[in-house]
Amino acid sequence: MEIQRVVRDLVTTKRHVLLGSKSLRLVEDNKGDLSVALDPVGCKPGDFVITIGISAARLAAGDPKTTTDLTIGGIIDEWSEADWRA
Amino acid sequence: MEIQRVVRDLVTTKRHVLLGSKSLRLVEDNKGDLSVALDPVGCKPGDFVITIGISAARLAAGDPKTTTDLTIGGIIDEWSEADWRA
Amino acid sequence: MEIQRVVRDLVTTKRHVLLGSKSLRLVEDNKGDLSVALDPVGCKPGDFVITIGISAARLAAGDPKTTTDLTIGGIIDEWSEADWRA
Amino acid sequence: MEIQRVVRDLVTTKRHVLLGSKSLRLVEDNKGDLSVALDPVGCKPGDFVITIGISAARLAAGDPKTTTDLTIGGIIDEWSEADWRA
Amino acid sequence: MEIQRVVRDLVTTKRHVLLGSKSLRLVEDNKGDLSVALDPVGCKPGDFVITIGISAARLAAGDPKTTTDLTIGGIIDEWSEADWRA
Repeated sequence: MEIQRVVRDLVTTKRHVLLGSKSLRLVEDNKGDLSVALDPVGCKPGDFVITIGISAARLAAGDPKTTTDLTIGGIIDEWSEADWRA
Repeated sequence: MEIQRVVRDLVTTKRHVLLGSKSLRLVEDNKGDLSVALDPVGCKPGDFVITIGISAARLAAGDPKTTTDLTIGGIIDEWSEADWRA
Repeated sequence: MEIQRVVRDLVTTKRHVLLGSKSLRLVEDNKGDLSVALDPVGCKPGDFVITIGISAARLAAGDPKTTTDLTIGGIIDEWSEADWRA
Repeated sequence: MEIQRVVRDLVTTKRHVLLGSKSLRLVEDNKGDLSVALDPVGCKPGDFVITIGISAARLAAGDPKTTTDLTIGGIIDEWSEADWRA
Repeated sequence: MEIQRVVRDLVTTKRHVLLGSKSLRLVEDNKGDLSVALDPVGCKPGDFVITIGISAARLAAGDPKTTTDLTIGGIIDEWSEADWRA
């Protein structure tokens, strides 16, 4: 799993049906590279989260038919930008 | 999932049968690196899209026997080159 | 598999249910890049470990429904920073 | 999928049985990095091809028990070095 | 698949049970980056090998329950450092 920070929501009106109506979040890693993650946890911008990839991402979505390769798995209790870049 | 931009169609007459006759698009990331994605959504050049990898790519193709490792999952509503590179 | 070093525990109170109550460890590679791994072995900070990714990470968690993409698979008997960076 | 160029055949007499007797090709990407791909299509050196990774590589081999993580999925109709590096 | 060179054995007394008692080898790529691969073939240090990743790594281990994400699939017949870096 990787540590990423939620940047903001991402809206895609025209979307594959198996992504459902679940929330997509724009997330960034410690180099500022952007990815898109499914959010079954309920995060807000600025949260540092654990993201889950590979086939586990589908399981973490709650329904393994969900077509995600990156899903937020938890919010880290204590983390700051300093921890990230140290 | 990653954010990529559709460059153009990619034609492969001699192709594996399980890719079917679905459309393949040449896509690029924010560094200009090229990949090839299956397009079940119907995109046009210049669209910013969400691409789905890993085993979820096969599910997103509509038929999990489809031999794709990258499938377009949706068109992003509001995105410009500035968002991408910021 | 990759060789990584355990940095410390990582606490996530708000967490996906399928990660269970298993221990998560912050691990680093030889470039200092951080990841998060599930630990079914029982490691302590400073241990050099083998981490298992891809679908094998779920099997290595003991229960393939566990939503992990990186799991510690063993502690290396003889390894030092010198081996790592050589 | 990625766009790669076939360099030449690769011979491995001592080989895992589940790779069968299928042809292996040395392929390179646009940076000259080398990989090895299974070739069920029948390519010749210099062909620009689409390579399929992840679990789809096994399906593209014709038999999902084939132990490949990279399989050639098609030959691109019109592609030159200029397209690749542009 | 990737081309890697066997560096030496890697001993892990405290190890996940599903890795069994199979041999683990330290392998390096052409940049000197190290990984750990399961070896069902029987390699010796200095051999240039093909390594298989993703879910195919588990199949190549002989038992798909084996918790490996990288397995040696064959020894390359003719390969030298010059081929690798060219």
